Formats: sequence, structure tokens, C-alpha cells
Amino acid sequence: MASKQKKIIFLIQCEDRKGILSATSTWFYQRSYNILHCQQHTDNIEGRYFMRIELDMADLKTTRKELEEDFAVFAKEYNLSWECHYSDYRSRMAILVSKTSHCLYDLIARKDEGDLQCDIPLIISNHPDLEIIANQFRIPFYYLPVTPETKAEQELKVRTLLKRFDIDVVVLARYMQILSSEFIEEWQGKIINIHHGFLPAFQGANPYRRAYERGVKMIGATAHYASKDLDQGPIIEQDVVRVNHELGPSGLRDVGKDVERRVLAKGVQAHLESRIIIFKNRTIVFGSEQ
Amino acid sequence: MASKQKKIIFLIQCEDRKGILSATSTWFYQRSYNILHCQQHTDNIEGRYFMRIELDMADLKTTRKELEEDFAVFAKEYNLSWECHYSDYRSRMAILVSKTSHCLYDLIARKDEGDLQCDIPLIISNHPDLEIIANQFRIPFYYLPVTPETKAEQELKVRTLLKRFDIDVVVLARYMQILSSEFIEEWQGKIINIHHGFLPAFQGANPYRRAYERGVKMIGATAHYASKDLDQGPIIEQDVVRVNHELGPSGLRDVGKDVERRVLAKGVQAHLESRIIIFKNRTIVFGSEQ
Amino acid sequence: MASKQKKIIFLIQCEDRKGILSATSTWFYQRSYNILHCQQHTDNIEGRYFMRIELDMADLKTTRKELEEDFAVFAKEYNLSWECHYSDYRSRMAILVSKTSHCLYDLIARKDEGDLQCDIPLIISNHPDLEIIANQFRIPFYYLPVTPETKAEQELKVRTLLKRFDIDVVVLARYMQILSSEFIEEWQGKIINIHHGFLPAFQGANPYRRAYERGVKMIGATAHYASKDLDQGPIIEQDVVRVNHELGPSGLRDVGKDVERRVLAKGVQAHLESRIIIFKNRTIVFGSEQ
Amino acid sequence: MASKQKKIIFLIQCEDRKGILSATSTWFYQRSYNILHCQQHTDNIEGRYFMRIELDMADLKTTRKELEEDFAVFAKEYNLSWECHYSDYRSRMAILVSKTSHCLYDLIARKDEGDLQCDIPLIISNHPDLEIIANQFRIPFYYLPVTPETKAEQELKVRTLLKRFDIDVVVLARYMQILSSEFIEEWQGKIINIHHGFLPAFQGANPYRRAYERGVKMIGATAHYASKDLDQGPIIEQDVVRVNHELGPSGLRDVGKDVERRVLAKGVQAHLESRIIIFKNRTIVFGSEQ
Repeated sequence: MASKQKKIIFLIQCEDRKGILSATSTWFYQRSYNILHCQQHTDNIEGRYFMRIELDMADLKTTRKELEEDFAVFAKEYNLSWECHYSDYRSRMAILVSKTSHCLYDLIARKDEGDLQCDIPLIISNHPDLEIIANQFRIPFYYLPVTPETKAEQELKVRTLLKRFDIDVVVLARYMQILSSEFIEEWQGKIINIHHGFLPAFQGANPYRRAYERGVKMIGATAHYASKDLDQGPIIEQDVVRVNHELGPSGLRDVGKDVERRVLAKGVQAHLESRIIIFKNRTIVFGSEQ
Repeated sequence: MASKQKKIIFLIQCEDRKGILSATSTWFYQRSYNILHCQQHTDNIEGRYFMRIELDMADLKTTRKELEEDFAVFAKEYNLSWECHYSDYRSRMAILVSKTSHCLYDLIARKDEGDLQCDIPLIISNHPDLEIIANQFRIPFYYLPVTPETKAEQELKVRTLLKRFDIDVVVLARYMQILSSEFIEEWQGKIINIHHGFLPAFQGANPYRRAYERGVKMIGATAHYASKDLDQGPIIEQDVVRVNHELGPSGLRDVGKDVERRVLAKGVQAHLESRIIIFKNRTIVFGSEQ
Repeated sequence: MASKQKKIIFLIQCEDRKGILSATSTWFYQRSYNILHCQQHTDNIEGRYFMRIELDMADLKTTRKELEEDFAVFAKEYNLSWECHYSDYRSRMAILVSKTSHCLYDLIARKDEGDLQCDIPLIISNHPDLEIIANQFRIPFYYLPVTPETKAEQELKVRTLLKRFDIDVVVLARYMQILSSEFIEEWQGKIINIHHGFLPAFQGANPYRRAYERGVKMIGATAHYASKDLDQGPIIEQDVVRVNHELGPSGLRDVGKDVERRVLAKGVQAHLESRIIIFKNRTIVFGSEQ
Repeated sequence: MASKQKKIIFLIQCEDRKGILSATSTWFYQRSYNILHCQQHTDNIEGRYFMRIELDMADLKTTRKELEEDFAVFAKEYNLSWECHYSDYRSRMAILVSKTSHCLYDLIARKDEGDLQCDIPLIISNHPDLEIIANQFRIPFYYLPVTPETKAEQELKVRTLLKRFDIDVVVLARYMQILSSEFIEEWQGKIINIHHGFLPAFQGANPYRRAYERGVKMIGATAHYASKDLDQGPIIEQDVVRVNHELGPSGLRDVGKDVERRVLAKGVQAHLESRIIIFKNRTIVFGSEQ
């Protein structure tokens, strides 16, 4: 969603306490920043406060580094966890796939149309099938086959590639491999997976077959951050589609593809637009304002 | 949905085979019935054929008993399982509740408005709280408290009441008691339960608390026939509503109430309109045509 | 949605300018208010700023009048339009109906269940049909028939009743009469209507018949504030339901009832929870946080 | 949706009368066809009967021509309008575009993934912008610019191309040109358009701007057959997405793109799978069974 105005985005979380909004907004006001948009959430159960602030980048009178160093002093005083993003930075996104193309196609198309503000410097796969799509879009394609014996070694190659290409975010677009906990830990909050089921229903394999057998009347998909426990990471986005008795497992799969691509795209977009704060196993996903 | 035209409805299932549609439609044609509506489904995985036929009751030139005896001969020849319903018959529906009123209110209101073609001769509860609603609508209310010691005895009273009132279908409108397998077996395919979760996610207790903890982005409800395995019976209807981080467990519960009442009402309506065929643990729910 | 914590709610709008958030949040902080929830919106096209602030009522150390007088000084300085609401105040809601009961039933049921924080001191109708429902719930029912000749006179009686009963908000729950512009002006922003169509499609009469003729695949409903131009007032809430060729006009009407009651209830709830700000012909409807 | 079993599909409509189902199903049974799937609809208001029959192509013991000639005799006797399709035939689909790529991308991707059973022999545009996409997928791209003076001439070129490439169905994937009534008449029921609005709301130009100004809470898209009256043709598919005050016209447009591509794809798929019957200005769209 190509908004012309450049923005600085702060994502902040801290223990809930009186005066935090006043202190923060005043801090920015005193430095002559116009707050374009401020979103907050208080989790009363956890006693936790979350804030997303959009500033007009035209008000930036210092270097970015100076802004961040300056804010760090304030943040320390108030014990804030925070990140700072700049809307003119294009995240570098790696896509990992296996054999299924629908999510891959969709992500590339949305990037090309300007809906996903990112570059896609490479696609990695454990199968050669989707090279043709990578070629169509002139994106480097790395085929890294994997066997039980070579799993560790192959994953190392993947991680080396991600570093070499200076990747910011990894999208598992139906990549049918389980990642090691070292990988996941290193990339905490930066790997987005699409699960082709409405979690927590049908965790694990063959969700469409099991959905058919259970006779469900809706099927869904879930985009979530990867975590050590398979399919248990913080959920970013979910959606469903109504189905009926007329669809067998393969029909459900076909219908499900549409939900998968939509849900994954929305999850990736929220991440790229710096609208997500993770706390414990949950996400705060602020709405987009345009 | 009060349609003026009276109808005879046949629900049929059998092994899939050539010619069954021809034979059946011809059987009715030869007896001068106008087929108002014919819906079919073939489950290719199970090799099973399902059919729902609506006839114009004005074409009935025999007694109902004669029609059924006549059809039984045909059905035997083709090895059909079947039921026959008449749209001018008002099913007698018992509602079982505990303390929560939203589904009860909704069912009664829809009955009064003519959307649910049934009578509600009694409400049974293990708590006295909802008697006031029963009184508002002048429906007999039976308060049958239950303790671990009196459970079997209480259930017996419930079943006796259902027989005494000549009940056709039992709706568990948030009745927080587990039924014995004898009860469920006796009423196979005639007890509809609303589960306040999107089955198979969050089976069992406290689904909203668990939905909050899991950080889901949608919550749902499921209407299903009661089966011996708790929350595992054939699903009739499901729906979801989008939620976000702003809702804690009680907020989810409030939002969930709306889905619950809607889903239960749709499930009950499909049952009352003879649009459901059960096969194994799945339902075929034919659409309504009006 | 019965939240235990009592709250003070400020709804504020003004021209967009730097520092407004800092000034406002600091104003409350200096008076030791804990801001429970702060929601904002900037309409860049209109250059307009909107804010909703929830304060903990436990922090109120003055009378309500003093708080408001105190804030009025600040508001004048910053040129704010504002309202102040208290969550322990139960709005007094009048329901106007004609012959159709589904919305009426639904509103009363939700009030009784605690989802709508209001009292319903009276129901007014131009037809006697729904008196029975009013009686069931022991709500005074005023039957004020209307003919072309008595229209002005009848409306005067309606308005007199609203004053006599000290009404805060009027809900047209399928009240099939057009209100005079005097009535609407006097009650600006306080009359909520349900239109049984997905505005701006099918404005005016017989929307279901016209939806059938147009062969639409979804039908909807719209809750909006009444305005002088019929069906043109600020939209609060809309929803749709998927339909298909199987439904004729009466089938669409039946299905539509469910959307109507849901949409009206959500619109009324947003109003009662002081989550709506009107600007020109549009509404800002802030989400509920619980 | 690549189903392995080859099928013969009959689409039939006629005046409603007794015995039509019996006669038709018996006709096929006598020729030893297995009816895989039979869907029917009776429009009681119009007195019109619609039927879709899927036969197992393995049962075809004659040439296709013989089957059709044979059936034509029967159809004449019963006064049926009918079409016969074969699932192993790949329709030839032309896509007409202007400058917007999202629907084009989506259609091509779904074709490549096997969800749309068709070939796309050419893309035609009145602007050169999307040639790059056509090249990526190696689809011939015809750039036919248009001015008010050359409009008739350009359209002639378009129609000539459609014939030269032996096109079966034309998809207007955001082609911002009005077609002449000759063109539309010649291609009656074979041109599918996507309207970026929830018809009949916001017919005509700039629907997102007008949706913003009206303050709607949902936006939608409509796939319909082109007709002489602009945006008035038979609707095939519609969908909506929930929006709120945070989205301005450009935000609505971005969100709308996703609905547009989804709705167009579903409409095109229903057409390609021979699931649509047109009657007057309405469509009967039978569900897909897989």
C-alpha cells in the first residue's frame, strides 16, 4: 500500500503505568514531531501497555542514529521495549517454498503491484519444481534438496544464504520442512509461516483430509510467527471460508489455497508495515491507516 | 420460514449406483407427484448417494400411511434408507438450558416470528435462573437440579418428561451437563448441541479463555448432533467472527454469544426443515429453497 | 457488555494540529487520571482529528460538573468539540416499531442479557400488533396510529412521549414512517435507523424484491443515524450475508432479518458505549476494548 | 480445480412442468449413462426449471456429435434450451486490460496452478503498461490504443483478434473501455466483467471515492456478464470486505483490489466449469462438487 508520505514508526511496549502516553507524546512534541497516528492497547490481564506511533519523517531534523540514541535515553528511564522503523526502508524478504506455487505467486505479484513494500532477493526450495516461476520474475532461485541425513547441513546452507543476502524477514510459503530450534531462535519474530488449517484445529499434517473426515463446515488458514513448538507460534492473521458436504479432501484443498494466500499476504503485509508487536505467545496487530 | 405451499419431503440415502435418480423420479412421476425440488449428493469416497425430494402435498391422493407403505416396497427393492416428513407437521422441541439465556431467547423469538416451524412445549434446566424467561413466554419450565449423586436420577426425569411431552427434537441451548450414552443412543440424531468454540479447536471447557491465551484472530461456534464422544458428533453448522487483541476472555465471550445463537438457530432450522441427512460422523445439509 | 470498571469517556474532535495528543494526555495526567484507553483517528483529507479517551472513574476527585467545567476551559483554548460520558449512566432508549418483531425482540433480549447498557422505558408503534411482546417484557406500549391526515399530530405525540420519558436515544426498529425534518433536527445524532438493504444499494422501498430482480449474490443491512435525506444519514454499521438463486423475495427477506437484527444491535451498542463520533456525513466508530 | 474424471455436462432450462426430471434422468439411464451429479432449481416466480447434469464421459459410446444430435430430438420434444460441455475441452480465454495488473496476475497464476481450466492465447490492452507481465508469462500481448476518434476501429481490431484466436470467453480484467452494443450482442453470455463496486451501489465511475464519501463500512466487487446497459448485466459473483473510518479513498482501493481479484476469479471459474445458466437478467450458479 504505497503511501507517499514518509514515516518513522515506533513500536513500544512496557508495563502499564499512569502517564506513559503523556510522557511519550510530549517527548515527541517537544522535538517538534507531528504524530500522524498513535495506536495503543492495554492488556489488563497482563498489565502490559503497547503503543505504535507514526511520525512525519519530514520533521526529522537529526540523523536517524541520533533520533534513536536520543529516544533510547527516554526509553531507559521509562523501561520501554521498543523498535524504530522507517517507511522508506524496503525490507529484504526471502521466500522458502517446496512444491506448491499459489502462495509464492501471490506474494511476488503483490510485491510487483506495490502492496508489499519489500524486495525479494532470493527464493529457496528443497525441490526444483518452482524454479520456473522464479525465472519468470527473474528472482535468484536456490535449490537445496534435503534428506534426513543432510537436514542439518542443508539448513546451514539456508541460513548462510539468508545472511549473505542480508535478509530481514523469512516467509515460509508452504515450505514443508521443520526448522531447527537454533534457526528459529536466531530469527525470532522474523519467520512467518502459513499453516493450512484453522489453528489450533488440525495442527500437524494433512489438515484437509482431517477436515473432510470431521465434516467441518468451514476451513481456514493461519499465518503465524515460527516458534520452537510446531504450529504454536504467535498468530498474526486467520481467515476461513465456508464449505459444505460437496467438497472432498481435494476440493477442500483447492478452496483452502485461496484462504492461504490471502491470509499469508495479510500477515506479511502487517509485518512489513511495522504494525505487529509480539508479547509472549500473542500478537498485537494494529490496523493500517491510509 | 413460513412457506405457504405444503410439502412432502423424502430424505433418502443408499449405496451409489446407476439409475437411482431415474428410478426414484419416475416412481413419483408415475404416481402423479410434482417434484418441487430435488437435491442430490454423491460422496465418491464413500460410494454413497444422498437425495432430498420435495413433493407438492396437493398431489397426495392417498393417506400418508399408504404413501409410506407404498414407497417402502420401492425402497426395499433399491435398498434405500429413507425418512418421510410433512411440512405441515410442527415438530415438538424441548430446550435444555443451564444459566445462560442468549440462545434460549433467540430460539423462542425465532419460533414466535415463524422462522422455526415448531412448538416448544417445555424448557428443562438444572438451574432455576431462567424460569423468568419461560414465564414471559408462558412455556412450562422444569427445574431439575443435579448433583454428582443424583445425576442418573435427574437424567431419568428429563427423559421421562421428553416422552410425556411427546418431544421430537431436543436442543441443548448451553446445557452444561454431559448426557449418558443411553440417553444419546435413544435420541440418536435428535439432540442438537451448541459448542461455544470452533470445533475441533478448543474442545471441552473454557474455550474463550483458551482462545484468548492462544491469541486467535477469529472465534467461532459449532452446532452438532450429540454423540457419545463429547463434542465429536456430526457437525451441522459453524460460523466465526473476527476478533483482535483488544478482547480479553470476557470480551471474546460476549462476541461469541452472537455467533452461538446464530449458529444454533441455523442448525435447528435445517433440522426442522428436514434438510439434514447423517452418514457416519458427517452431515449432508441441503440448502433451503424458498 | 458488562465491564465492572467504571469509566469516564471523552469524545473529542478538532482541526488536526501538532501537539494535540501531548496536550490532552498531559491535561489528564496532571489531574492524576489513568488513561485506560486512548483511540485516535486523523482524517487527512478533511484535516480533522478525532479522539476517544477512557479514564478510570476511580480517579475522579471532583464532581462530574467540575470535571466538565474544568475541561471546557482547556477545550476552548484548543478549539475542541467534545462530549463527556459516564459508563455508569444507563441511557434511556425508546424503540419505535410498526409490525415486524425481529429487531424489537433482539434489542430487548440483548438489554436483558446485559449486552446493551440501557433502559427501555417505552415502545411506540403506529400499529397494535406488537403490544403482546411489550407486555411479555412489561414495557409500556404506546399505540399511536397514523393516517396522512394525522401524521403531524401523531408525530407530535411521539415527540411529547420521548420528552416525558426523558429519552436519550431513539431506535427505529423497522418503523415504517418517515420523520419530519423538525423531528430529525431536534434529535440529530440520536435516532438510529435500520435499513433493510445494503446502502447505498436499494435505497427506498421493497429492497428485497429489487434485490431478487437484480439477481444479487449478497444481501445486507445498514444501521445509520437518521438524517433529513431519507436513508442518507451517517452509516454506523453494515453487514451482508451470501445468498443464491434459490431464494426468492420472501426467502431473501427471511435471511435478511438475521442481518438486520445483528447490524442494528451492533450499531446501537456502539452508540450506547460512546464509541461513535459523527463528522459531516460519516462516522468514526472506535472498536470496543474489553 | 483439476478433477481427474472426465465429464459431460448438460445445462438445461425450460418451462417448469411435471415429469421433466423423470424424463431426463431416464433418457440418460436408458443410454447407460451414470449421472455423477444432478443439480436443479425451480424459479416459482418465473415458472422456470433449470438443471445441470454431469455424466461420466467413460459411458460415452457414440461420437459427441451423435450424443448431441440424439439429445436434440429429446430436447425438442420437451422444449428444452440446452448446452452440452465436455470437461476435457480447455476454453480459450482472452483477457482485456488497461493499466491495472492485479486481476491479470491473479487469473494467469490460477491458470498456471490448474485452478482455471483454460488457455490464455492472448492479452489485449489499450495501454502498453502491462506488456511486461504478458512477456513474463510468454502470452502474446496486443496493444491497441484507443481515442474517441478511433474507438470503433479499435474495437473492430479487438473483435478480429478474438476470432482469429478462436476465443471462447472474454474477461474484462479492469478494461476501462465501454464496449459497443454490437460487440456485446455478438458475445452475449461470453464476456465477464469485474466491477469494482458492490453493485447496484456505486454504478459507474470512481466507486472508491464515492464509497469513502458515503462512509460505507464494507466495500465489495461484482463479477457479471457484460450487457448493453453498463454495469447492469447478470451478476455471477459478489463479495465484500469490512472497512472502517481509517481508510481513505486510496486505502479503500487497495483493500478493494483483493476482493476484485477473488470475485473475478470465482466468476470466471464458475463459467469455465459450466456451472452457470443465464435467464433474463439473473444467473443460476450451481455449486461445484469435487
